[in-house]
Amino acid sequence: MKLTQTILKQAKAAVPALAAVPAEQLDRALLCVADELEARSAVILAANADDVARAEGHIAPTMIDRLRLTAARIADMAAGVRSVAALPSPLGRVLYETDRPNGLHIRKVSVSLGVVAIIYESRPNVTSDAAALALKSGNVAVLRAGKEAFASAYAIVEAIRAGLRTAGLPEDAVNLIEDTTRASAMELMKADGYIDLLIPRGGAGLIRSCVENATVPCIQTGTGICHVYVDAAADLDMALDIVNNAKTSRPSVCNAEEVLLVHRDAAAAFLPRLRARLIDDRLAAGKTPVELRCDERAFALIGGTPAGPDDFDTEFLDYILAVRVVDSVDEAVAHIRAHSTMHSEAIVTADPAAAGTFINGVDCAAVYVNASTRFTDGGEFGFGCEMGISTQKLHARGPLGLPELTTYKYIVTGNGQVR
Amino acid sequence: MKLTQTILKQAKAAVPALAAVPAEQLDRALLCVADELEARSAVILAANADDVARAEGHIAPTMIDRLRLTAARIADMAAGVRSVAALPSPLGRVLYETDRPNGLHIRKVSVSLGVVAIIYESRPNVTSDAAALALKSGNVAVLRAGKEAFASAYAIVEAIRAGLRTAGLPEDAVNLIEDTTRASAMELMKADGYIDLLIPRGGAGLIRSCVENATVPCIQTGTGICHVYVDAAADLDMALDIVNNAKTSRPSVCNAEEVLLVHRDAAAAFLPRLRARLIDDRLAAGKTPVELRCDERAFALIGGTPAGPDDFDTEFLDYILAVRVVDSVDEAVAHIRAHSTMHSEAIVTADPAAAGTFINGVDCAAVYVNASTRFTDGGEFGFGCEMGISTQKLHARGPLGLPELTTYKYIVTGNGQVR
Repeated sequence: MKLTQTILKQAKAAVPALAAVPAEQLDRALLCVADELEARSAVILAANADDVARAEGHIAPTMIDRLRLTAARIADMAAGVRSVAALPSPLGRVLYETDRPNGLHIRKVSVSLGVVAIIYESRPNVTSDAAALALKSGNVAVLRAGKEAFASAYAIVEAIRAGLRTAGLPEDAVNLIEDTTRASAMELMKADGYIDLLIPRGGAGLIRSCVENATVPCIQTGTGICHVYVDAAADLDMALDIVNNAKTSRPSVCNAEEVLLVHRDAAAAFLPRLRARLIDDRLAAGKTPVELRCDERAFALIGGTPAGPDDFDTEFLDYILAVRVVDSVDEAVAHIRAHSTMHSEAIVTADPAAAGTFINGVDCAAVYVNASTRFTDGGEFGFGCEMGISTQKLHARGPLGLPELTTYKYIVTGNGQVR
Repeated sequence: MKLTQTILKQAKAAVPALAAVPAEQLDRALLCVADELEARSAVILAANADDVARAEGHIAPTMIDRLRLTAARIADMAAGVRSVAALPSPLGRVLYETDRPNGLHIRKVSVSLGVVAIIYESRPNVTSDAAALALKSGNVAVLRAGKEAFASAYAIVEAIRAGLRTAGLPEDAVNLIEDTTRASAMELMKADGYIDLLIPRGGAGLIRSCVENATVPCIQTGTGICHVYVDAAADLDMALDIVNNAKTSRPSVCNAEEVLLVHRDAAAAFLPRLRARLIDDRLAAGKTPVELRCDERAFALIGGTPAGPDDFDTEFLDYILAVRVVDSVDEAVAHIRAHSTMHSEAIVTADPAAAGTFINGVDCAAVYVNASTRFTDGGEFGFGCEMGISTQKLHARGPLGLPELTTYKYIVTGNGQVR
């Protein structure tokens, strides 16, 4: 097993060579990587079968499903890498340019960060997604997969490195950490001077550990207490579809809805229909019903569970929805400002003034008008793949796109200016 | 004395109201602030005279000079505020816009951060500079001045708040922390939920304390081991002027030069002239000579002090310059990559190829071709005032401009899209 320190050194050493590669050659390399992923499909599937066999009985069936690859999933991974290659390069963009009175010419130009490290868990496709986004933005990738996915990740990284060699790029542009114990995650968090950006992708425990322990620059991802506000001027059919989708399409993810706010003028018409849709219809279809935790006014209309003091501050990640009736869009905004985790918030309304108040009033990464919060995702935003969703305000907010994987440099040219 | 916690609460409460103020009104408010600074010049000077009287004998004469205000300095402060008002607003810019195949329209729009806190020391003008840049970018400012400058800062903040009232803005948009003990600085570093960005402006001790203790988002400013590389193709007269300026115009600041690298083909002609300029000429003029700490090859040409092992990794902030002869621009780049603090680096050359290698090869906030490193400064870059110089890569690099005092929000509009 290679030491983590050795891998970090080889990654850092690859930075200058990778930074000198023109954008077109990076794109050609990504196409070679996609080809190698498909060419090595059988090898990757065999490694994945080993991972699955070792994991079965030890992790939950939903985790096994996340871990398992198929030929179709590998084709999807290759397609993801090709879609990243097709995006415009985030490098070399002139972000600001000025001529100063003293004759200095100043340009602010986007450049790669250097080494981007990603700690993730059991989904093998994160390996190629993260590597593709890092490469496209001129960064060396250091990948640290969960131990249950190691053999799959190893086979995928071997394919990626083969693609890089074919394209004439340094293969150390993509690196897999071989130590899958907790020690290596901690080593990455403390690797000052070796890692320019660390992205933790995983559960609350991993994120908290990064916030507490990381001394390298780190982007906080994750927690989403997402709200949908159904306005007095909402199309109630649309509102039903959006709340149903935001709550039930995949309750375990961070962009799922946790809290419903309903304008008092819509509540009497909307809430009974919502109850029918989320409970009665689902029971009739043999699906898990949604538990509605209602404030006093909502409870008076549809019953359910009386909401407790923590229900408006909990990321349930389950078939549970907190419901509150509000008097105005301003009250909805104030509630969200007090309880939001700054992830995704939605308003359903046909009133442009209410939409404007909501858009400007809530403080979050993504604010939706007449659409589900579930769209907060790199792929859905057109970023090619998903790298993580930032809930902080500095540097990156929402799905990490290619610009967020770059920094910039001021290039100042003169003819002897002194101050 | 108002408690720091009370001030943080009033600052946070002012965020929504300030965020709703249109850019034109922010600019009008800045002009009112500038007018009030001038109108209250006598009051501010009286407060400053008290500060100076209390400080005399307790702090170094250079610090007294930093602390002392004059009518002309107050006029400069007002002019700085007016120049910020004249800059384009960083708010509401569409940074990215796309129509997705499912009909969703996605816009990435710049918005204010919320509360920006600045911890600084004895220069009273930082009070109005920081407040102006924060206001222009729609942020509530929390200012924490050094205790020796408190009376001056208080008088300046009173003027600013008067200007805000005149313009119909909430006066709590600019707040001064009243506790000037270390406890309040620590309170700001730990004020999770109240501060969206903390900028420490001061000595190495303050910066280190922030890195170690801050749990709020913080931008590292400060350390500069800046290099000037004199290429084989340099105009030696220009190189002499640039090195002289970068080293001696103000040795105590972070954008001053600490290390000189000279190409071997230029060394024999350049170094004796440099020695004459930095030592003999300065002695003849009654100025402090520069101590040259030379590597072996430079020492063979001009003597001086033999460079010790730490001399290429020390921010001298003094009349000391480490000197090394290199064989090529590539060796200069490699030296800088190994020793840089990622602040400012310069090349002097008439060769565009060497300039290109240097620009792409060094990893720093500002890279100069044929100009002094001393220009790394918000005012010199056209940003109106100086807010601090970031030496990190995330979010902000180099002088903090108005865009770096904003974050962004994705605004997604649809007509009922679900996923």
